[in-house]
Amino acid sequence: MEHQSNKLIFKRLGIHTQHEHFAYMREDCDVCVSEGFEALTRIRITKGHKSIVASLNVIRSEILKPGEVSLSESAIQSLGIKEGETITVSHLHPITSLSYVRSKIYGNILSSTELKEIVQDVVKGNYSNIHLSAFITACAGNRMETEEITSLTEAMISSGQRIRWNSNMIVDKHCIGGLPGNRTTPIIVSIVTAFGLTMPKTSSHAITSPAGTADTMGVLTEVNLTIEQIKKVVEKEGGCIAWGGAARLSPTDDILNKVEKALDIDSEGQLIASVLSKKVAAGSNHVIIDMPVGETAKIRSIDAANELKVKMEKVAHTIGLKLKVVITDGTQPVGKGIGPTLEARDILAVLRKEPNAPADLKERALLLAGELLELSGKVDFGDGNDKARHILESGKAYEKFMAICKAQGRFDEPTLAKYQHKIKAGHSGTVVRVDNRKLAKIAKLAGAPDDKASGVDFLTPLGTRIEKGQVLYVIHAESEGEMIYALEYYHSQKDILTIQ
Amino acid sequence: MEHQSNKLIFKRLGIHTQHEHFAYMREDCDVCVSEGFEALTRIRITKGHKSIVASLNVIRSEILKPGEVSLSESAIQSLGIKEGETITVSHLHPITSLSYVRSKIYGNILSSTELKEIVQDVVKGNYSNIHLSAFITACAGNRMETEEITSLTEAMISSGQRIRWNSNMIVDKHCIGGLPGNRTTPIIVSIVTAFGLTMPKTSSHAITSPAGTADTMGVLTEVNLTIEQIKKVVEKEGGCIAWGGAARLSPTDDILNKVEKALDIDSEGQLIASVLSKKVAAGSNHVIIDMPVGETAKIRSIDAANELKVKMEKVAHTIGLKLKVVITDGTQPVGKGIGPTLEARDILAVLRKEPNAPADLKERALLLAGELLELSGKVDFGDGNDKARHILESGKAYEKFMAICKAQGRFDEPTLAKYQHKIKAGHSGTVVRVDNRKLAKIAKLAGAPDDKASGVDFLTPLGTRIEKGQVLYVIHAESEGEMIYALEYYHSQKDILTIQ
Repeated sequence: MEHQSNKLIFKRLGIHTQHEHFAYMREDCDVCVSEGFEALTRIRITKGHKSIVASLNVIRSEILKPGEVSLSESAIQSLGIKEGETITVSHLHPITSLSYVRSKIYGNILSSTELKEIVQDVVKGNYSNIHLSAFITACAGNRMETEEITSLTEAMISSGQRIRWNSNMIVDKHCIGGLPGNRTTPIIVSIVTAFGLTMPKTSSHAITSPAGTADTMGVLTEVNLTIEQIKKVVEKEGGCIAWGGAARLSPTDDILNKVEKALDIDSEGQLIASVLSKKVAAGSNHVIIDMPVGETAKIRSIDAANELKVKMEKVAHTIGLKLKVVITDGTQPVGKGIGPTLEARDILAVLRKEPNAPADLKERALLLAGELLELSGKVDFGDGNDKARHILESGKAYEKFMAICKAQGRFDEPTLAKYQHKIKAGHSGTVVRVDNRKLAKIAKLAGAPDDKASGVDFLTPLGTRIEKGQVLYVIHAESEGEMIYALEYYHSQKDILTIQ
Repeated sequence: MEHQSNKLIFKRLGIHTQHEHFAYMREDCDVCVSEGFEALTRIRITKGHKSIVASLNVIRSEILKPGEVSLSESAIQSLGIKEGETITVSHLHPITSLSYVRSKIYGNILSSTELKEIVQDVVKGNYSNIHLSAFITACAGNRMETEEITSLTEAMISSGQRIRWNSNMIVDKHCIGGLPGNRTTPIIVSIVTAFGLTMPKTSSHAITSPAGTADTMGVLTEVNLTIEQIKKVVEKEGGCIAWGGAARLSPTDDILNKVEKALDIDSEGQLIASVLSKKVAAGSNHVIIDMPVGETAKIRSIDAANELKVKMEKVAHTIGLKLKVVITDGTQPVGKGIGPTLEARDILAVLRKEPNAPADLKERALLLAGELLELSGKVDFGDGNDKARHILESGKAYEKFMAICKAQGRFDEPTLAKYQHKIKAGHSGTVVRVDNRKLAKIAKLAGAPDDKASGVDFLTPLGTRIEKGQVLYVIHAESEGEMIYALEYYHSQKDILTIQ
């Protein structure tokens, strides 16, 4: 099966293509000629007993010499290869699980075994972006049965590492995204761990929003922790606020997220599987879900929220997770800041009990922290909110937060962006409607989340009485180019805020 | 909007990535740093008044010097740029039509305007493979309404060139694929044009099969003709058998086909739009559709065939095409050869009236040619088949075929592959079932259609009485590696032929 002519010398070209593995081969190399490779072909690359699948790009220039092959950086990492070493290139055996993806495209229900095989192939990098996109699309738009979501969740759990804790009770919370500035997590972790519960919180980077908790916390402290580092922090402080992907808790999810981001969609089934698999992989067994509902939030109606709640609680129950979904208001951003740095500033203001701290962010964090205290059974029903408030007001939550940051490696005060532009009211009236999506889009166009300090500072919540010329919100950007870009979008849009 | 720092010098690296445009930029270049570009980002590349969208790959090596940028070959061609010229790189404005793709993913019906915008963006190269895959997947599995298929057809027609002919009546035929070896087209064109009708046949390369008519004809003559060249051939001979894509008759189709091939799926709506748009763009107005039905053909049941027939005739009627669908037998391959060269050999045998010419291929060609003669109104109903047979038997069809090949640029006799392997019967009995898909897969694994002479020679049609050890079919391969690969698949499968 293995031919001598299929051996090529590896040369590094330093090409970064993210998760999709690429191989670069000369058009005139023996392997291309004898095996009939062409562009868009998927091939197998083997070094020793390690083997990966890569998309072929054909080279017609002298950046590769005869007998040389190159690989994208992700492929180099997976294969663990060094310049000058020899690899073997061969035709790809048909990937069986792709026939299950096709079956799903045609509307069939996938079995647990089929979903497991798909997930295993995704993690191995056996799918090209074309295949990943087809799988995501075929599952989106409510096309997954609850049984399929359960199977996908279980497959995703077993595809990554799983943390075991010394404590029997591990609490957690998650927000079903879509609400700008809704950064309650760091406050909740601080309160709940100050109370004495164990809350090893792992979060994700933004998929389609201007910031995820991992982006925001990354401003204040180190979030790229290994499982060993997370364990040390939690052992010391009872909690952490780290990036889940670095711990490889659900590697499938990280790959699927990149393609979902490119498509700008979230699939319901993959959303449930993503959230629950990360909770279980992180060792959690008591979980609160914050589900904001609003016209321009991710979940637009109470009916849709209840449908998702039922499915999510059903899947959670099947996999043995104690889970409560709390439906919350999603009609406008939470706090002032939208974007990692601005949100980090708001969190600190609440924890430090600053007079201008956003009250809505504070109350929301207390609501959810209270629910979590009650779900744990350590606080009587009805007493959770008061208990949480007491811990915050006493300063113990702030103390705990700073201790967690230091345990994670550093604490930095947030620094605002270089460029700021105030958006002012064209007429007077009252704010009656906020388009969360458009505000989030401005924050994204200004550079968030990749540019940490970019974003929007939203100053006039629903019901605010506005005078003509009053500042409604401030756009922050780290580069002039992105400020121009965000403003261009602002000028092209109507009804970002509706003032009547 | 345009910053000086966004200007970079173009350097060619000779990287072929097929239709998806890629841009290669240094991680440390001003543009990457100031604009915050990262991998999987889509960016806009502008040179003068020409502009394209490309996927960004980040370079961390010295293959690019500071201030340099490179592009994939498809992007170079679209932009018409030469080494050393300056280009401008900028953030990509959101592509509006992608929101229609998302809408389709969530099950909504797309309007004519929306589909037109999608098609325009596809043709411009504004979609990455991730987007193309999502669009194809969202439309597959019977998720397009007849109105959407009509709109898609019209959008695809207007996205490419359209040929006008001097003659009022232009006839055509098309086979809804999936039946190995069903290569009647060249015979039909020869008969019908010898009769005096105008039949400028444009065909496609294989999407998921071992050969398309363009692949098979490419063995015998030049098929990559420009519209001007096609016109000259048709003016002289009354017909041609050329590749439709070279004439850019439906450029959308060529791009979508590559992704469909990678996914190994055919979407019904895109299938109808693809076929009809090419017919109309080629200027046809009288069309026969050959629709083979069989357990392992593309269309598996008469019910499914009738459903597709009704939709296709409805769309054809709406866009003003006289079209008749002929449902045919699809239970086994047609002729002996499966793969470009082997099929080309069979076609010549029928046209040359050789004694061992496959009778089934001949009779099928006569049936369809007869239907086409009758559809034209120039031959009375009931007389078509006799008329077609007379033209074939007289040698006029062969004469015409050779004239067309020469007018297209060359005629080459087919040359068989270097490696051949006979598959023999393990026991005696009668052939009662043929798995077309598995036979086709063997031909593909052996290298077809890219390796022209690779494929399968199928010798024992349904009902053949078999002795143990008798040769059932012969695998042909141009390389040893692919022969091994095809045989490996053969050994892993049961019931390719069922002998009882």
